[in-house]
Amino acid sequence: MTRSTAHEKTNLLQTARTPKIAITVGDVAGIGPEISLRAVNELCDHSAADFVLYGPRTILTRIADVLGLNIPCEIQDIGNVSLNDFQPGQTNATTGLASYQAVEYAIGHALHGKIDAMVTGPIQKEAWHAAGVPFPGHTELLADRTGTDDFCMMLTSDEISCCLATIHIPLADVSSTLSSSLIVRAIRLSADALSRKLGRPATVTVCGLNPHAGENGQFSHGEEENIIHPAIQQARELGISVIGPIPPDTAFTPAQRKKTDAYVCMYHDQGLIPLKALSFDDAVNVTLGLPIIRTSVDHGTALDLAWQGTANHQSMISAINFALSTLRSAT
Amino acid sequence: MTRSTAHEKTNLLQTARTPKIAITVGDVAGIGPEISLRAVNELCDHSAADFVLYGPRTILTRIADVLGLNIPCEIQDIGNVSLNDFQPGQTNATTGLASYQAVEYAIGHALHGKIDAMVTGPIQKEAWHAAGVPFPGHTELLADRTGTDDFCMMLTSDEISCCLATIHIPLADVSSTLSSSLIVRAIRLSADALSRKLGRPATVTVCGLNPHAGENGQFSHGEEENIIHPAIQQARELGISVIGPIPPDTAFTPAQRKKTDAYVCMYHDQGLIPLKALSFDDAVNVTLGLPIIRTSVDHGTALDLAWQGTANHQSMISAINFALSTLRSAT
Repeated sequence: MTRSTAHEKTNLLQTARTPKIAITVGDVAGIGPEISLRAVNELCDHSAADFVLYGPRTILTRIADVLGLNIPCEIQDIGNVSLNDFQPGQTNATTGLASYQAVEYAIGHALHGKIDAMVTGPIQKEAWHAAGVPFPGHTELLADRTGTDDFCMMLTSDEISCCLATIHIPLADVSSTLSSSLIVRAIRLSADALSRKLGRPATVTVCGLNPHAGENGQFSHGEEENIIHPAIQQARELGISVIGPIPPDTAFTPAQRKKTDAYVCMYHDQGLIPLKALSFDDAVNVTLGLPIIRTSVDHGTALDLAWQGTANHQSMISAINFALSTLRSAT
Repeated sequence: MTRSTAHEKTNLLQTARTPKIAITVGDVAGIGPEISLRAVNELCDHSAADFVLYGPRTILTRIADVLGLNIPCEIQDIGNVSLNDFQPGQTNATTGLASYQAVEYAIGHALHGKIDAMVTGPIQKEAWHAAGVPFPGHTELLADRTGTDDFCMMLTSDEISCCLATIHIPLADVSSTLSSSLIVRAIRLSADALSRKLGRPATVTVCGLNPHAGENGQFSHGEEENIIHPAIQQARELGISVIGPIPPDTAFTPAQRKKTDAYVCMYHDQGLIPLKALSFDDAVNVTLGLPIIRTSVDHGTALDLAWQGTANHQSMISAINFALSTLRSAT
C-alpha cells in the first residue's frame, strides 16, 4: 500500500464516520497506562475523534481505580496479564508480551481500516526481548508489518522538528553508517510531512556531522563533502528547499530556527539534544513514510514513577493531537 | 607557575591598584574591533577595572571614526597594519600576524603581572596559518606559553556551562580519542571553576557518549562502562559531586539543568548545541586550568558583518564580565 492510497482510505473513512484513534498503552509496569488514561480523560469530550485503548482490561480498570480516573472510552482488551504477574515499576516477559501484542493488533487494525491512526505508549525494549519478540522496538515492527523500508523517525514539537538520518547506533559508527541516500530520505520525508502540515513548501535545514561542519576537512573525514553535500544536491533536484550543511552548534540558535521548518540530523543526539533542551514535555515521535499514521510519546516507561499518579501526560496529548492534525491534513 | 600562585599574584595586584583587563581585538578584517570598542564604551564608566585594547592603533582609530564610537581607554598599539593592507571582510597574512602578535603580547603581560586578565576577540585560523603562526588557535598558543597541559575549554552562560573532554576533532575519532583522564580533567577543572564562582561545592553532570548512554552496550562500543564510569569514580574519590553518565538527550532538559552547575561533554557539539540553542548571544569561552585568567567570545570573525556597525557585542560584554567575576572570586 502506498501513502497515497492510505490517504484515499482515510478520506473514505472520514466521510463515513468519526475517525478512530488507537492508543496502545505501552508496558503496564510503566507510566504508559496512566498517561493514556489521563490523556483520553482530558481529550474525549471535546475531540472530533473516538479513542480506543489497546491493552489489558483488568490492569486498565485497576489503575483507573488506583488513580481515581474514569475510563471514558472503548477498551480493546489485549494481553493476558493479571495483577499477580508483575509489580509496578518492574517489567517482565509477561508485561513485554502484552505490550507487543497491543501494537500488533493496532497495526493490523490500521492496515485494515478499522482505526485511522495509532498512538503508541512507552514499551520496555528488554521486556520485548524477554518475551521472545523478534523486533527491538516499535519502528522495526511497523516497518516489517507494513512492508516499508522508506521510513524515518521525526521528533517534533511546537518549537522544533528533527528528522534523523541514523538512529540507534554507537556514535563511533555514525560516520561509516551515514550515506547520501539515508540523508535524502530524511530530507524528502520531513519536507513532505512539514509541507502538508503547513500547507506550503517547507524548508529543511541539514546539519553537518563534524564540529564547524568539518571546517573544510580540518576536523572531518570528508563526510560533509562526500556524503552530505551530494545528498543536499539530490534533494534540491527534487525541488525541495534545503539549507546546509550548517555547523551543528549554530544550527539550533534562535535566529537559525526561524529560517527553517525542520532539521535533518546526522545522528540521534544531534537532533534529540536540542529538541529536549527546548521542548521536553510536548515533543512527539512520528514515524514518517509509513502507509499508516503512527505517532508516539517521546519518552520511556519511567519505571521509577509508575502507578504513583505523578506522571506527566503532555507528550501523550501532543502525540494524539499530532495524529489528529495529520489525519485532517490528509483529507 | 601554578594556579594558586597566580591567585596570590592577583591578590597582591588587586590591593595595589585597579585591575587591568587586556582585550585583544582579534582579526581587524572581522567584527572583533567593533565589538571590542562597543564593549569598552558600554563598560568603562561603571566598571571597577581599567581596559586596554591590544591591536593596531591606526585601524582602531579608523573604525571608531567609521562607526562614530569613542575610544575611552588605553590602546596597546600592536600589529603593523595599515588601511591599504586589507579589505574589511577579507583576512590575510598581515591581519593574521597582527591578531597573533596581540595575543602574544597579552599573554606575556599577563604572565608578568602587567595585566590581570585577558579577553580575546575572534581571530581567523586560516589567517594565522597564512602568517606562518605555528599554532592553530588561541588555546594551543596559551598552553605553550604558559607551559600548561592541564587545561580545558568551557563554554558558559547564565543558563548553562559546558566543559569539553574533546574539542576540534572529527566526530568519528571521538570514541578512540576519549580517555578517562581527559574526562577526569574536565570534571576537576569545571568543578573547581564553578565552586569558586558559586562559593559552594559545585555539582557536575557527565554526559554519556552514545544514544541513551549506550543502553547497557546495545548502542555503544562500551565507552560508558570502560571510559566514562571509571572517570566518574575517580572524580568522586577526589571529593567532587558528580551525576552521570546521563543519556545525552535527557541531560539538558529544564529539570535536569536545575540539578547541576556544569556539564562535562564528550565532544564539541554535545556541549555547544545545547549551549547555543539556549543562550546564543551571551555565552563565553573560558580556558580553565591556565595560570592566567583568559576568557573569549564564543563566536567567530563574522566576516560578512565586518565594519558595518551591526555586530552584536553581547558575547564580548559577557566575556569581560566573566573575567571580572573570576578576578573577584580569586581575591
